[in-house]
Amino acid sequence: MKNYLKHDEWCIIEEGFNREFNEITESVCSLGNGRMGQRGNFEETFTGKTLQGNYVAGVYYPDKTRVGWWKNGYPEYFAKVLNAANWIGINVEIEDETLDLNICEVHEFRRVLNMKEGYLERSFVAALPGGKQVKIFAKRLNSIVDDESGAIHYAITPLNFDGKITLTPYIDGDIKNKDANYDEKFWDEVQKETAFAEGYIEMETKKTGFHVVTGQKFEIFQNGTLANFQSLPIKKEKYVGSQVTLEARSGEEIVLIKYAVNLSSENHTKEDLLPNAKAYLKRIAAKGFDLILKEQAEKWASKWQVNDIVIEGDVAAQQGIRFNIFQLNQTYTGEDARLNIGPKGFTGEKYGGSTYWDTEAYCIPFYLATADQQVSRNLLIYRWKQLGKAIENAEKLGFRNGAALYPMVTMNGEECHNEWEITFEEIHRNGAIAYAIYDYINYTGDEAYLAEYGIEVLLGIARFWAQRVNWSEYRKQYVMLGVTGPNEYENNVNNNWYTNYIAVWCLKYLIESAEKVKASDPGRYAELLALTNLNEEEEFAHFQHIIDNMYFPESKELGVFLQQDGFLDKELTLVKDLPESDRPINQKWSWDRILRSCFIKQADVLQGIYFFEDDFDLETLRRNYDFYEPRTVHESSLSPCVHSILAAKLGDKARSYEFYHRSARLDIDDYNNDTEDGCHITSMAGTWMSIIKGFGGMRIKNGKIHLSPFVPENWQSFSFKIRFRTNTLNIKTTAQEVIIENLAGDALSVNVYGDEVQIKSGEIVTVNQKTLVLA
Amino acid sequence: MKNYLKHDEWCIIEEGFNREFNEITESVCSLGNGRMGQRGNFEETFTGKTLQGNYVAGVYYPDKTRVGWWKNGYPEYFAKVLNAANWIGINVEIEDETLDLNICEVHEFRRVLNMKEGYLERSFVAALPGGKQVKIFAKRLNSIVDDESGAIHYAITPLNFDGKITLTPYIDGDIKNKDANYDEKFWDEVQKETAFAEGYIEMETKKTGFHVVTGQKFEIFQNGTLANFQSLPIKKEKYVGSQVTLEARSGEEIVLIKYAVNLSSENHTKEDLLPNAKAYLKRIAAKGFDLILKEQAEKWASKWQVNDIVIEGDVAAQQGIRFNIFQLNQTYTGEDARLNIGPKGFTGEKYGGSTYWDTEAYCIPFYLATADQQVSRNLLIYRWKQLGKAIENAEKLGFRNGAALYPMVTMNGEECHNEWEITFEEIHRNGAIAYAIYDYINYTGDEAYLAEYGIEVLLGIARFWAQRVNWSEYRKQYVMLGVTGPNEYENNVNNNWYTNYIAVWCLKYLIESAEKVKASDPGRYAELLALTNLNEEEEFAHFQHIIDNMYFPESKELGVFLQQDGFLDKELTLVKDLPESDRPINQKWSWDRILRSCFIKQADVLQGIYFFEDDFDLETLRRNYDFYEPRTVHESSLSPCVHSILAAKLGDKARSYEFYHRSARLDIDDYNNDTEDGCHITSMAGTWMSIIKGFGGMRIKNGKIHLSPFVPENWQSFSFKIRFRTNTLNIKTTAQEVIIENLAGDALSVNVYGDEVQIKSGEIVTVNQKTLVLA
Repeated sequence: MKNYLKHDEWCIIEEGFNREFNEITESVCSLGNGRMGQRGNFEETFTGKTLQGNYVAGVYYPDKTRVGWWKNGYPEYFAKVLNAANWIGINVEIEDETLDLNICEVHEFRRVLNMKEGYLERSFVAALPGGKQVKIFAKRLNSIVDDESGAIHYAITPLNFDGKITLTPYIDGDIKNKDANYDEKFWDEVQKETAFAEGYIEMETKKTGFHVVTGQKFEIFQNGTLANFQSLPIKKEKYVGSQVTLEARSGEEIVLIKYAVNLSSENHTKEDLLPNAKAYLKRIAAKGFDLILKEQAEKWASKWQVNDIVIEGDVAAQQGIRFNIFQLNQTYTGEDARLNIGPKGFTGEKYGGSTYWDTEAYCIPFYLATADQQVSRNLLIYRWKQLGKAIENAEKLGFRNGAALYPMVTMNGEECHNEWEITFEEIHRNGAIAYAIYDYINYTGDEAYLAEYGIEVLLGIARFWAQRVNWSEYRKQYVMLGVTGPNEYENNVNNNWYTNYIAVWCLKYLIESAEKVKASDPGRYAELLALTNLNEEEEFAHFQHIIDNMYFPESKELGVFLQQDGFLDKELTLVKDLPESDRPINQKWSWDRILRSCFIKQADVLQGIYFFEDDFDLETLRRNYDFYEPRTVHESSLSPCVHSILAAKLGDKARSYEFYHRSARLDIDDYNNDTEDGCHITSMAGTWMSIIKGFGGMRIKNGKIHLSPFVPENWQSFSFKIRFRTNTLNIKTTAQEVIIENLAGDALSVNVYGDEVQIKSGEIVTVNQKTLVLA
Repeated sequence: MKNYLKHDEWCIIEEGFNREFNEITESVCSLGNGRMGQRGNFEETFTGKTLQGNYVAGVYYPDKTRVGWWKNGYPEYFAKVLNAANWIGINVEIEDETLDLNICEVHEFRRVLNMKEGYLERSFVAALPGGKQVKIFAKRLNSIVDDESGAIHYAITPLNFDGKITLTPYIDGDIKNKDANYDEKFWDEVQKETAFAEGYIEMETKKTGFHVVTGQKFEIFQNGTLANFQSLPIKKEKYVGSQVTLEARSGEEIVLIKYAVNLSSENHTKEDLLPNAKAYLKRIAAKGFDLILKEQAEKWASKWQVNDIVIEGDVAAQQGIRFNIFQLNQTYTGEDARLNIGPKGFTGEKYGGSTYWDTEAYCIPFYLATADQQVSRNLLIYRWKQLGKAIENAEKLGFRNGAALYPMVTMNGEECHNEWEITFEEIHRNGAIAYAIYDYINYTGDEAYLAEYGIEVLLGIARFWAQRVNWSEYRKQYVMLGVTGPNEYENNVNNNWYTNYIAVWCLKYLIESAEKVKASDPGRYAELLALTNLNEEEEFAHFQHIIDNMYFPESKELGVFLQQDGFLDKELTLVKDLPESDRPINQKWSWDRILRSCFIKQADVLQGIYFFEDDFDLETLRRNYDFYEPRTVHESSLSPCVHSILAAKLGDKARSYEFYHRSARLDIDDYNNDTEDGCHITSMAGTWMSIIKGFGGMRIKNGKIHLSPFVPENWQSFSFKIRFRTNTLNIKTTAQEVIIENLAGDALSVNVYGDEVQIKSGEIVTVNQKTLVLA
């Protein structure tokens, strides 16, 4: 855990240059707009510790490298997130010295990610080895208004000399991926072009053939006036730049404004890419940097308007939640139904692919409450569109009759990760995809979704489970062998309680949903029967037989569900007794040792109790929580948030807050010692849930909001906005009261601490704080 | 299964060119001499289906390619067996056409591997597309007398034309591995040299820096006389050749004799490589092809003298066993203690590394009975020398205090394979290494080995087991979690019966061995205590506690040991009910489906009953055999032999023969549809065991040979020679009697069908056949 970034309500602030943590700061200071993004790298040359990263949504490379024994059914490739052309580069030569913070003395260094207005700012004074001093002020943004563009304001002031300063804004497509084997490069050059203070390069990805045109255009101001300058075009392999040499005078500021665009063949025909890039660049350059900045701030203000969570009395917590909300909004806007939420967003290249079960289990609730309903719907339809691929994927593994297994990791519906214990066995993801349909309909009331899309997905998933279980003659029950649960620190186990539970739930929910559709829309139902070749009587009877006869491992003696068969054979030690030097165990222990230990990566049994809370009484939750949480190392970013919500439910406010804090500041404080690889984007939605479902105690039941909020001890208050069907509410909780404002929409009834509260349109209603009432 | 190779007692014969099976025939026709070897490729150009392969013992490449999530503790590299310079190449141009069987009409094709004398012969008539016809006769060998050399006799006779024939004998170092990622090449050129009718190339492996000099020297005869010719040197990247153009006349034979050497930096200093290669080549060329061939035949005759098994009445079985013995002798000679027995020998590149548990579990018994005791001793010392690396390997996985985990796959003692379920969990290999020590001492009576070397290895292994088990509070017994047994179609299981059993056996054997050494050589024992930092009292008490309290899964109801916890939860179907189209399941089923099925790759519980047969009565064997064998798919080449021996013990002669046949002809008949990748060398020792331990019923008990032979139904007799301590015996079994000849050594007593039989030196004793008596 680290603590070098300053606490601030709206900004991430690094004061003084922390060279050794630079890759962490780069991750945290990443910018993105859903379409493109990049890490908080420097514009000028930097030869110190850095992970340069520029990313374009949807662009990947299919790595077919094989190692070890190939297992039949393995996916064709591992999808690598591709590091794309660097468009932020500005090389700075001062007389014959290159500005490079790695070899300069650095003073007054300050890097600020302004989350309120959506830009990254950096300033410092550098003393070059030859003694010359310059002051730099740089500000850049990835536009959320024109989301294929970005802009940089780069100002340089000589402090103690007059002389030549050469600026070379450039685009470099000669990019390496950190995880490339044999340093293989993934981009080929297609064409490039330069003009006065302007340049374009078109690159193509190997194998996948994505084309991306990256362009730049710049202007220079000296002493506040537009300068006349010569621009010397520089073309190298996979590189275009323009070299400008200026006579600088001590104390006089030179400002370079660089506009850049990134257009991909995902959004333009290949023929149009270059002309469209030119037009785009012309248009944004015409706006000018100040207008671009202003539009950016306005659009961010409108986002914060609906998304912000305000915490009084705890700056670190306030900064944490805003950072999480900011990064989520930078990663996924919901505007493009082909995209999804990559676990690192635009902040790093680790984890191939873009879509994990994180989307359904963690992100959907966030978007449901903070964005237009269409955004969550798009995320569901994304999976519906990939149903055919999920059926193919299941067929590869020997399943038949329309059984669907959604991929663990995907770019386009195909499985694109290849560890057998994950891709073949971590099948509970199928359950999360079904659960998200339930969650969406429960939240929005959009029952029509079921008939139109949902039911097909539910059927494919139900068929998968029905084939994946087997009858154990020995137990006279159904069992599910060879799975990996959410706790990936166990592989190929039998009867993972969570997987068995969600499988049975999926079967029940499918039958129940089918009945609904049959009743509400018999025509569509008949169509579905034909489309899915469903033998209703026989298949449903089989599903019901599984529902009635499934085996769930448990210990009557301990009063807990067993994570899997044989769990009690382990040495049942506690995390608190692990030496600090052994943690994180995934960096310190070999895999077999992790597997046979009792230590849990993230909620597993508890994930099930969290999803299906109404099925279990509080004592059951408590016993399982008390048994499993002390053995959980929370080495998945997805872990603390669920525990925060459960601790809240159990009335353990302190632990709930502790988990919230860990989730909210995971990356800022580098809790798991891995922020240098990028930020944990998907778990940020979990942080949001910790507040809304944890401290706020919010649930949707029977079409109504239920609340039972409490304020963590050191907070004065917290307030959040939610969109719920046709209403928008602001809910503020203080130590004394809960204040609910019906900002938009008709009158509605909200259940607060078990009581119905009527709130008229525009009205503010105050309810006294109560001791936490348990759902 | 295929059946295109002719049955013959001494030869493998292909009559007519089977293009589609060419890669299979190439594997089967491989030549080797323990130091180098190659597949049965053609000398001349061939553009059809072929897997070209030349291999040099001990030369490998450490592939560091990473895919997926890296697991802590993974080995640094995966050792690839390297395909080395092709030294057999002779390009043949007839006027302006290249001789290439892929585009010729081929007549009278015949390829013969002569196992009696150790050479490969090939003849055919080829009609070139232009109509010219030539007759080719080629014969080549890898010398077992001069084991860094080989020689080729290549004869060409124009049948219907006079004209120019250009011969280009060459060495090509520009070699690809079949399993290279991105077609990476693993060899760099160091230097090359040509002289008249002579050429050398020195190549270096990337990363590992092995140097290999390959050289050639040739002469040409026309019409039986040494020809005068011009030799045009050809040098290309990684290639040297000499081009010779001759005026050929219809019906007159041209013979090219090519001598080649392959010297590696494993056996010569890098500076000496080239001069030594020249001297070597000069020496063998001076011998001439006929003498080389004669010496080869004589040395093979002396090998067959001690190794041969003669079967009367079953040519296919005779061919099978000779093929197995021949290939084993080609792979490993026991002369170099640094080498071991790669699972593919010199017949293919699949499976990295050279040493598996196959050596201890399958090969040691073969070498014990057929070679000088020193050969098996060397194989044991190979592991003793690697004890330090085995301790390091265990330390990487978190074990302490001298616990040793031998690698699953290795070149030099380091683990060099990286699948977590294998390298971290298939730990029963440690047991086999301990068992081999027991086996060796039991066979040879060399008790001194224990004090000198064995005990250190046994202690390291015992310490490993003692740390690898854990106490289950739930069971109040020790358990062993997260292992892979010999049946690799189960991964990460708990309480694999075989592993638990051999672990406990190792602990017992260590304690017993320590007592022996303490009694027989107290000085050495004191030395060992210090060397290994052994706390005798405490550690042995702990070992004993484990021995007394280990958990072994079993079903009292079924009367069988359970392969692992939860085995009975599986769907317990039978192999005979599997559709043919589903087999082999490792090519047809996805990995998860294989894992959760009950189907067994190779003996697992039965491997334990086989190793420790005296611990179990016949009914226990029968119940377990009847339960497990029908669920075994025998998709490991190591499977049929053990089942053959057990079936023999159970009196099921027909099944025992069937398994023998499958093992013996696995490659010749391509049973598992994978011979094209190379032959299954290590399991060939298992074939030998099927006859000696299965049909011969041979065991060594209390320093004495025990026999209870039977003759498979369709055989007239079989006879084998064994070396046992100071004796050499020939044991022939017919339907009526067992004839034992004491070929060398003093009088000895042999137990035949339970009776003691005295056999004087040089004497032949005949015993009447009896119904199989069970041990």
